[in-house]
Amino acid sequence: MTELSENSVGIVKTETMRIVEQDRPLELACGKALAPIDVAYETYGKLNDAQDNTVLICHALSSNAHVAGYNSDDDKKPGWWDAMVGPGKCIDTNKYFVICSNFLGGCSGTTGPSSINPATGKPYGLDFPIITIADMVKVQKLWLDKLGIKKLLAVIGGSIGGMQVLQWAVEYPDIVKSAIAIATTTHLGAQSIAFDAVGREAILADPNFTGGQYHNGEGPDRGLAIARMIGHITYLSEQGMREKFGRQQRKAESYSYDFNSEFAVETYLNYQGQTFVERFDANSYLYITKAADYFDLKKDHGSLTRAFANTSSRFLIVSFASDWLFTPAQSRDIVNALVANSKDVSFCDIASPYGHDAFLLEPGTLGLFISSFLDATYQPGVRQNNNLDTIRQKRHIGRLEQARRTRVDYELIESLIEPNSTVLDIGCGDGELLANLTADKNIKGKGIELDQERVLACVGRGLSIIQHDIEQGLENYADKNFDYVILSQTVQTVKNPEKVFKELLRVGKKVIVSFPNFAHWKSRAQLFFLGESPVTKRLPFSWYNSPNIHFLSLKDFDRFCRKLRVKVEKKIPLGKTSLSPVRFAPNLLAEQVIYVTSKK
Amino acid sequence: MTELSENSVGIVKTETMRIVEQDRPLELACGKALAPIDVAYETYGKLNDAQDNTVLICHALSSNAHVAGYNSDDDKKPGWWDAMVGPGKCIDTNKYFVICSNFLGGCSGTTGPSSINPATGKPYGLDFPIITIADMVKVQKLWLDKLGIKKLLAVIGGSIGGMQVLQWAVEYPDIVKSAIAIATTTHLGAQSIAFDAVGREAILADPNFTGGQYHNGEGPDRGLAIARMIGHITYLSEQGMREKFGRQQRKAESYSYDFNSEFAVETYLNYQGQTFVERFDANSYLYITKAADYFDLKKDHGSLTRAFANTSSRFLIVSFASDWLFTPAQSRDIVNALVANSKDVSFCDIASPYGHDAFLLEPGTLGLFISSFLDATYQPGVRQNNNLDTIRQKRHIGRLEQARRTRVDYELIESLIEPNSTVLDIGCGDGELLANLTADKNIKGKGIELDQERVLACVGRGLSIIQHDIEQGLENYADKNFDYVILSQTVQTVKNPEKVFKELLRVGKKVIVSFPNFAHWKSRAQLFFLGESPVTKRLPFSWYNSPNIHFLSLKDFDRFCRKLRVKVEKKIPLGKTSLSPVRFAPNLLAEQVIYVTSKK
Repeated sequence: MTELSENSVGIVKTETMRIVEQDRPLELACGKALAPIDVAYETYGKLNDAQDNTVLICHALSSNAHVAGYNSDDDKKPGWWDAMVGPGKCIDTNKYFVICSNFLGGCSGTTGPSSINPATGKPYGLDFPIITIADMVKVQKLWLDKLGIKKLLAVIGGSIGGMQVLQWAVEYPDIVKSAIAIATTTHLGAQSIAFDAVGREAILADPNFTGGQYHNGEGPDRGLAIARMIGHITYLSEQGMREKFGRQQRKAESYSYDFNSEFAVETYLNYQGQTFVERFDANSYLYITKAADYFDLKKDHGSLTRAFANTSSRFLIVSFASDWLFTPAQSRDIVNALVANSKDVSFCDIASPYGHDAFLLEPGTLGLFISSFLDATYQPGVRQNNNLDTIRQKRHIGRLEQARRTRVDYELIESLIEPNSTVLDIGCGDGELLANLTADKNIKGKGIELDQERVLACVGRGLSIIQHDIEQGLENYADKNFDYVILSQTVQTVKNPEKVFKELLRVGKKVIVSFPNFAHWKSRAQLFFLGESPVTKRLPFSWYNSPNIHFLSLKDFDRFCRKLRVKVEKKIPLGKTSLSPVRFAPNLLAEQVIYVTSKK
Repeated sequence: MTELSENSVGIVKTETMRIVEQDRPLELACGKALAPIDVAYETYGKLNDAQDNTVLICHALSSNAHVAGYNSDDDKKPGWWDAMVGPGKCIDTNKYFVICSNFLGGCSGTTGPSSINPATGKPYGLDFPIITIADMVKVQKLWLDKLGIKKLLAVIGGSIGGMQVLQWAVEYPDIVKSAIAIATTTHLGAQSIAFDAVGREAILADPNFTGGQYHNGEGPDRGLAIARMIGHITYLSEQGMREKFGRQQRKAESYSYDFNSEFAVETYLNYQGQTFVERFDANSYLYITKAADYFDLKKDHGSLTRAFANTSSRFLIVSFASDWLFTPAQSRDIVNALVANSKDVSFCDIASPYGHDAFLLEPGTLGLFISSFLDATYQPGVRQNNNLDTIRQKRHIGRLEQARRTRVDYELIESLIEPNSTVLDIGCGDGELLANLTADKNIKGKGIELDQERVLACVGRGLSIIQHDIEQGLENYADKNFDYVILSQTVQTVKNPEKVFKELLRVGKKVIVSFPNFAHWKSRAQLFFLGESPVTKRLPFSWYNSPNIHFLSLKDFDRFCRKLRVKVEKKIPLGKTSLSPVRFAPNLLAEQVIYVTSKK
């Protein structure tokens, strides 16, 4: 073993605890009863006196309770999420009491199909009952009860672990303060079911499977390896595979003209298949993939919106752009259902080439999201400045931000908003306006922003922030969902202002719009006298590099409002820096303008 | 059998021909020799007197020589591309002599691993030599020689058939007048190699494979079925599968809680696997997928550009937007290599939800492309008006076209172009300007257009047209590749005019740009006096629905040219309809303007 670094949790022991006794079986979703049930688990860090710092990690298909550190001095590799969990790491064991158990049906200590069936004295094999994600979570809850843990600061997991996170939030709303669901879905689509089915077929077709009772024989190693190979293709992205392997050959430049493994990607998959066989049980593979296939919150609750109706956690939903197994669209479905319930949800689709496996391979960016969200949930009052500052220093937020949003704008918009109201800020940047409104006016604010780094900054501020392109509309927001919707210095940059504006008017009781006045006298004069496309301080771009794709004046917007039958409640023409409105000839003298509008 | 419709080729017989005799073996790419070789084939229609109407179809992995019609009265299904081939169909057997052979290594009559090995008197099995796509094409060429066919009007194929098309064009440039390569690639990427490798592993792992000598036993049916199931997932798109199957269950609403096939998609895949086993040979599956894995024109020729350097065919390259097996990006690589060689190539990425299988499932749109291209290649002088008219009537080409491009513009641009020159028209619409220039000035023209229907119209005119977004640049076009590049009424609609304009100046000796003058007096007056975003006849859109996202005047463009150090050779300010230039105060009085520019 390499020497332990100072941010490792060190040597840990997997504990086992009996949580269901032989004489009091647990009823499962399939209707069958199971007993006894043992749970294997690990813990890192310490439960604090307030008992409010427990972070439950749920693992994915092929991993187990061993999240971080080493089980012995001889261990060559640390736990599966060691990059994320440890003292000073993103899930900081100095702050948090981190726990993880091998799930029901697994093969790393918790009761599963390779456990001894008390009825026969032999391993269960296919006599093990079919289990569901809900069963797994039920067992975790019994385990928590036994540990004496009553509240969870957060439940975190990726992939099938993310399914457990969602199930936790839906089933135990009072216990789960926050839920971080990564690269997951509320249900597998047809393609994923198909891949699972073919993997299972490879195991079942292996003659060494012998009906699941292979424990004294060779076991279905080739079948399990094929299943794993199929799985592995789906965990990587096409781009990731191309960049990692391409058409590289393992040995010679020329072809071998036989059926041996020859391309690097073949060798890699063979290796993955073979090593998997050494550490995993074929029956567990069957049961866990079936549990994943069966997971369907929509089916359980009638609709996804209803599924999340009673949740009370803060949610952080994360997807990865190149994940084609559990896609960003599937994560957005979760977000949409939470939005439809007006829940506190943040979402980011992280740019990554690593496909589904990014939840293991992107500890940097993912870690920042998780730590920012955890910290803001744990200590909402405390600005985690160190974190935010690092983010800001390390990551550039361009000049566009400054050009679009100005202090004058912000201060005036703040003055227009009633205390204790609800606010949706479109294109909210790093969340400054929302943070100010929250601090000064006690509003309940939500943000929409496209840029990943700005979304991260908002998460760090503890805001409810969704990465979203406003051009796609606001379909899942209820009518009149907010007292105010703010569109500051953005209307001139969207492709379809009419569609966007109508959406805002639908979800907001009042819509506050600000934009630069294209009919300011300087612009007029420039075109009229000089015959040039105007370049001014407020419109500082040349015709060929402007982010502004629409040019409008106060008069244009007035007409637009009349056309859409929108009521203009206030119109505040502004000079360059002054907070006092331009009263005389505003369409000529205002550099920018703020409208407060509402539906007639 | 259902009654034969009048556009069916009717009952056809698969013929077999020995093309390599036992005593004169064919040397293969792997270095081994093979003899004898028989080829199974079908033909439809008649070879004309000029012997210039032969269309060779190359089939994909699991199909064979039986393209169209029925082999007997009892046949339940017609040939695999019956939708495309027949009298009056897109590949019209009234006009064309259509031929197809089962490829080398197949299992439908042509010599392959299930043929008898003369050395042993038993089927070859794994003693069959590894074959390549080039070997397949070599055998096809020998077959054509034997048939006495010296010229091919077109070689057409999808998927692995498309690989053969490319190989034909590269290997036999003098024979192939045109090449239509659909949903194909010059090489498999890592992900596709991986899927093939897992499929082969499933066959090899089946104990009934018995080293390939399974012909007296059961055969590796389960392994082959698994391979086919994997393949099938890759032939469909995620969207296609979702829409077709979703999470639909075969029988009950509730789960069965066992490992039987339960979801509709599982049942479908099982069925596909089982029926495949009945009609296909496992050894052939191994050999053909290996041939596909080995296909790599880049490796063969050092670079893709070099691979296509000596081709002399017209090319039509077609991909499907949802094909994730052989992706649109891979088709674009082919197009780029052809463009870099200044070859006659047309390209369209057809919008389809059907994934890779779209080449079988989109006979409508694909058929229009193929028939338009074939007709224009066969009789380049003859306007296939019926076709074009149908397309135009059936498919709407919106008002944008009319707004962007005008007769005045066209006529003036035509007058600026020297006879016999080379021209690239960016955003060429339905190709009218290029067609006129070709007819009137004998230019060699090429077009770039984004809209699928307009691309189709251009193909019908016999133009070389590439579906491409000019914002992506012109990376693969050589410097000074064209005498003229035309950008008519488009510069104001592109996101990055500077980047685009620089690219045009690189590839064209002269660049002709036309655009509406934003500083026309009417626009000036409207902003100056009325304070409104101008709406004029030339700029007919309101601020919120304009496709124009940049606004520029003659003066702006002059300054832009100075900044980029571009020489303005001519500047022709124009009125509304007149061909005579506006001589006085053009920036005030011109409604539009045409610039002829070049690099200094």
